[in-house]
Amino acid sequence: MKAETTTYSDAQTTIAVVRERLARFNAERDWEQFHGAKDLAMCLAAEAGELLEPFLWNRDEDALDRAAISQELADVLICAVNLAAKLDIDLMQAVDAKIDMNAQRYPVSKARGRATKHDAL
Amino acid sequence: MKAETTTYSDAQTTIAVVRERLARFNAERDWEQFHGAKDLAMCLAAEAGELLEPFLWNRDEDALDRAAISQELADVLICAVNLAAKLDIDLMQAVDAKIDMNAQRYPVSKARGRATKHDAL
Amino acid sequence: MKAETTTYSDAQTTIAVVRERLARFNAERDWEQFHGAKDLAMCLAAEAGELLEPFLWNRDEDALDRAAISQELADVLICAVNLAAKLDIDLMQAVDAKIDMNAQRYPVSKARGRATKHDAL
Amino acid sequence: MKAETTTYSDAQTTIAVVRERLARFNAERDWEQFHGAKDLAMCLAAEAGELLEPFLWNRDEDALDRAAISQELADVLICAVNLAAKLDIDLMQAVDAKIDMNAQRYPVSKARGRATKHDAL
Repeated sequence: MKAETTTYSDAQTTIAVVRERLARFNAERDWEQFHGAKDLAMCLAAEAGELLEPFLWNRDEDALDRAAISQELADVLICAVNLAAKLDIDLMQAVDAKIDMNAQRYPVSKARGRATKHDAL
Repeated sequence: MKAETTTYSDAQTTIAVVRERLARFNAERDWEQFHGAKDLAMCLAAEAGELLEPFLWNRDEDALDRAAISQELADVLICAVNLAAKLDIDLMQAVDAKIDMNAQRYPVSKARGRATKHDAL
Repeated sequence: MKAETTTYSDAQTTIAVVRERLARFNAERDWEQFHGAKDLAMCLAAEAGELLEPFLWNRDEDALDRAAISQELADVLICAVNLAAKLDIDLMQAVDAKIDMNAQRYPVSKARGRATKHDAL
Repeated sequence: MKAETTTYSDAQTTIAVVRERLARFNAERDWEQFHGAKDLAMCLAAEAGELLEPFLWNRDEDALDRAAISQELADVLICAVNLAAKLDIDLMQAVDAKIDMNAQRYPVSKARGRATKHDAL
């Protein structure tokens, strides 16, 4: 599956590597038949719901269960990569475009120190 | 913000690059004060909800609005990177560990061709 | 649609009344064709995501936008009633059974003053 | 808690009855201290995510796990009632107003047979 001596890291691993590994993972299990785009989007939303659980009723960030949160974040990312692969979307290109758009929507001069949504700025 | 001649791509851009860019983006706007971990998790879940919208009532994958989906996926990723940064979680390391766990939970011999959840396999 | 002189209230209106009104609403628009159970569940999750928005970055409950929250809660309920109607589920019966189950899972003696999930109690 | 001879039903039980029962349920467990409005909204979104799970990968509505779906719908409603109680929102009044608004946004003449969002109609 992956070379046993490697480990992923934000500093070195690209989405393309994850995407290829997941493609193999799914192909080995013959799971492509289940992976309609709609189901993959639902999967992501279900995982995003699970991500909320470790934060429920929490009042002290230092007491958060970081291991649980890491796992749920990983699930969200796995769904995102599977969905992007299915629809042939380049995630990092999409992120790039969206940050550019956010920079337009939230110019520093207007948005500084304010948590107001762009259409109300 | 970013060098104008570069563009992100899944093949080349790492999460670390996005994370640094978002850190600058947030710092310039003095937004760290709003970014409690709980709020960032809620933000991700809200964006995951928005991601569902382009799929609602759809019956034909070819008719999906890929531009809208790209944008919502980007929003999900941006929230994920912000949350991971806040809690000092390495996303790719988390993904690596989770795919390993999934490989254990869904061995090819049992999971092949079946969409059954691991605890029912 | 509804008699103009009536208004709904939690004290007087039953889910059955809402369910009948929505059935007429959907029939008049010939929307049953779109209302697959999966889509109605996605619709509910999308509305739950929208419900999070008025809470984002909020630190003062008195400053919450109650009108926006009311509207999003209504959307969630409308989806819930449509989904329950589609699958012939009695919502109040389901709520009754779930509160009974919660009373078993969270006996006062163990759960009092604790926000711990039942499987960790 | 509830009279043992009664059972809830959509035809007879009002939200007010559920709201009072949940108020007692929470008071007995001294849970009001955890029930910030933001947490209750997150709780609802987390339950909406769980509601998606029984629909994942499903292609045959007759094969859906109605018992699981009933339970998740009940959880969503319980969160909705708790949140509405916290913010003193009348859910049925909100539903009434929202269906009226939807009737304006989706006039039969324009919306009939079309799954288009109101702002694109």
